[in-house]
Amino acid sequence: MAGPLPVSPLALPLPVLPPLKGVRMATAEAGIRYKGRTDVLLAEFAEGTTVAGVFTKNLCPGAPVTWCREVLEGGLARGLVVNAGNANVFTGAAGVRAVEETAHAAATTLGTKADRIFLASTGVIGEPLPAHKIVAVMDDLKAKLAEDRFTEAAHAILTTDTFAKGATRTAVIDGVEVRINGIAKGSGMIAPDMATMLSFIFTDAAIPAPVLQAMLAKSVDSTFNCVTVDSDTSTSDTVLLFATGQAGNTPTDVPGHLADFRRALHEVMHDLALMVARDGEGAQKLVTINVEGAVSHASAKRIAMAIANSPLVKTAVAGEDANWGRIVMAVGKAGEPADRDKLGVAVGGVWMAQAGGVVPGYDETPVVQHMKGREIEITVDIGLGEGRATVWTCDLTHGYIDINGSYRS
Amino acid sequence: MAGPLPVSPLALPLPVLPPLKGVRMATAEAGIRYKGRTDVLLAEFAEGTTVAGVFTKNLCPGAPVTWCREVLEGGLARGLVVNAGNANVFTGAAGVRAVEETAHAAATTLGTKADRIFLASTGVIGEPLPAHKIVAVMDDLKAKLAEDRFTEAAHAILTTDTFAKGATRTAVIDGVEVRINGIAKGSGMIAPDMATMLSFIFTDAAIPAPVLQAMLAKSVDSTFNCVTVDSDTSTSDTVLLFATGQAGNTPTDVPGHLADFRRALHEVMHDLALMVARDGEGAQKLVTINVEGAVSHASAKRIAMAIANSPLVKTAVAGEDANWGRIVMAVGKAGEPADRDKLGVAVGGVWMAQAGGVVPGYDETPVVQHMKGREIEITVDIGLGEGRATVWTCDLTHGYIDINGSYRS
Repeated sequence: MAGPLPVSPLALPLPVLPPLKGVRMATAEAGIRYKGRTDVLLAEFAEGTTVAGVFTKNLCPGAPVTWCREVLEGGLARGLVVNAGNANVFTGAAGVRAVEETAHAAATTLGTKADRIFLASTGVIGEPLPAHKIVAVMDDLKAKLAEDRFTEAAHAILTTDTFAKGATRTAVIDGVEVRINGIAKGSGMIAPDMATMLSFIFTDAAIPAPVLQAMLAKSVDSTFNCVTVDSDTSTSDTVLLFATGQAGNTPTDVPGHLADFRRALHEVMHDLALMVARDGEGAQKLVTINVEGAVSHASAKRIAMAIANSPLVKTAVAGEDANWGRIVMAVGKAGEPADRDKLGVAVGGVWMAQAGGVVPGYDETPVVQHMKGREIEITVDIGLGEGRATVWTCDLTHGYIDINGSYRS
Repeated sequence: MAGPLPVSPLALPLPVLPPLKGVRMATAEAGIRYKGRTDVLLAEFAEGTTVAGVFTKNLCPGAPVTWCREVLEGGLARGLVVNAGNANVFTGAAGVRAVEETAHAAATTLGTKADRIFLASTGVIGEPLPAHKIVAVMDDLKAKLAEDRFTEAAHAILTTDTFAKGATRTAVIDGVEVRINGIAKGSGMIAPDMATMLSFIFTDAAIPAPVLQAMLAKSVDSTFNCVTVDSDTSTSDTVLLFATGQAGNTPTDVPGHLADFRRALHEVMHDLALMVARDGEGAQKLVTINVEGAVSHASAKRIAMAIANSPLVKTAVAGEDANWGRIVMAVGKAGEPADRDKLGVAVGGVWMAQAGGVVPGYDETPVVQHMKGREIEITVDIGLGEGRATVWTCDLTHGYIDINGSYRS
């Protein structure tokens, strides 16, 4: 591709992410692929920081994902290294060596063991990661570590993203206020050789690792795992949640005590997930798809994803066409229980079809108007049960073809 | 869309389809949606004609599919009515009435019962089918019935297709030569409101309906069901095979006696299926995807379809980029057994990656040359077993967005 991509028309400004006790970060220009921008992030966590992680379901994951899965078993983190420009995927034994080299260098730098270091890489697939370039900037990174570096961090991890993504919330645990900051990158499930969904979430709360893991996994299901740009699953998708325990709350695993934290965590993840959809490659419209009346929530989600991944639905949205025929087609291809003669379809809150046919006297005017907007809402009533789900996607435009159909340069 | 689409650069000429004993056909301009072209086909079959059918797996099928599934139980056919321009899908009770009206009119015209009449409709979804327009041309159709009308039939059933599709073969059953003619239409699994995959195959052989059904279903699996344009499944996909029994062979169900017929039938279906891929919406390149070394044939096919349906693989082909990183990603997202470190990927017969990494000394030159051609071949070795499959697709181009992203007009 020639030149930077234009900023998505759906972009949101990066909020101010306040400092967070127990997290210090620094970024550097390692020159892995990009020139004239930061491409490496180092984060240092306070002693005792617990960690949770959720990774790609792709069966050909990158070497950093394999590393994280292993060290996650310890439940403790002291450091995180993220690089952009090279995904270290499908790189064989050299990829494993690059991971080990990076982890050991970071461990030495931070005075800890390698199995307390988490890693993520995003960028080109199939090219060896020059770990020595990361190692070379490690001392510089250490010297620059500071608490107030979330904005820099949000920028250093980007690839084909057109805007930096972050979210912040506070919550109260047993009377103590804690903060959650999250950053993310991603603009396709995987993109023009480089892109992937990465998210790093930080909190100063004290929460045992198994509790943290359960909360993270639950919220991933209804946030990041409900976003699709092109149905393609990156080999590097990673969400990590670090809890430094510096806020002063007593560590707890009593569900009731964590209700407010769970709410705040979910909101941070929900914000970040929607930002990924808003930065979908070539996206001109953000599409929210609600499915209700399915036989179960899981069934509703599968139907919603079938609609969200249908090229014909996505091109119809790009063309501002409220084409409910294509939506019905997508419901039918999902393979989930559905009855043609009970289906209803609404766009922008207006029911176009109900009980298997066009609504009598249906007036297209408000729907046509809705389709011209930036945020499109599609609701499908399956008419069989109580299952419901909401997923988010973007439209499929010439921009997607431009970005992904151009030769690697 | 304004104006006709340009003919696919992958188009093949329509072969001469010789007359076939026991099949008479006629076409007419019913004006259902299109003007100045034929849009209805009537076929009359000799008494005793057996029939087999395979239909869409979409759970929201059109009314004609529901009709065909029911009358297929009788195993006998006297007539077929196909219309283009309106799919009679998601049309509720009106759709069922349109089907009955058409079937009864054709039955009266041909002097048979309605449950011997097969129907297929393709075109816009969600608009009532004006069956009276079909009924109005029925006498005219009857008057024009003739044996030598395959070319006209291949044209009358088209929607967004850019070329007519047909194939013919002969086979020998117990020393008697029989002929098989097939026609098809389809350019997306479902298209800009109108399109679908329909195929009608005719033979003068005498073959019992259950035997016919088994042969048709088996060949569909490795032909029509191995073609994907955009992963979307039409609500109307229909393949019907009619055997008039006029060639003079003795009806047989001895598998050995039907080997040559099975070969010829498979070839006809294979030709037609590839023509559908060649007419994929916006297609500039025909892509053959071979998967070998999977744990089973079924597993190989699922992996091959994951590659064929990946927007990132399809845009890479459009960009003439032999991007094996995206192919590996697609293998991994298929959810089938695969081991990153055993994978191999070849393009145009040249192995780019083997055993989980780039082939040492890999020379890109012949691959770059291959990617510039019209017919692209991708082979993936999973390295785990003996399972293999081949599927066909086309690239994903700006043409697809143009065709599917324009407002219904």
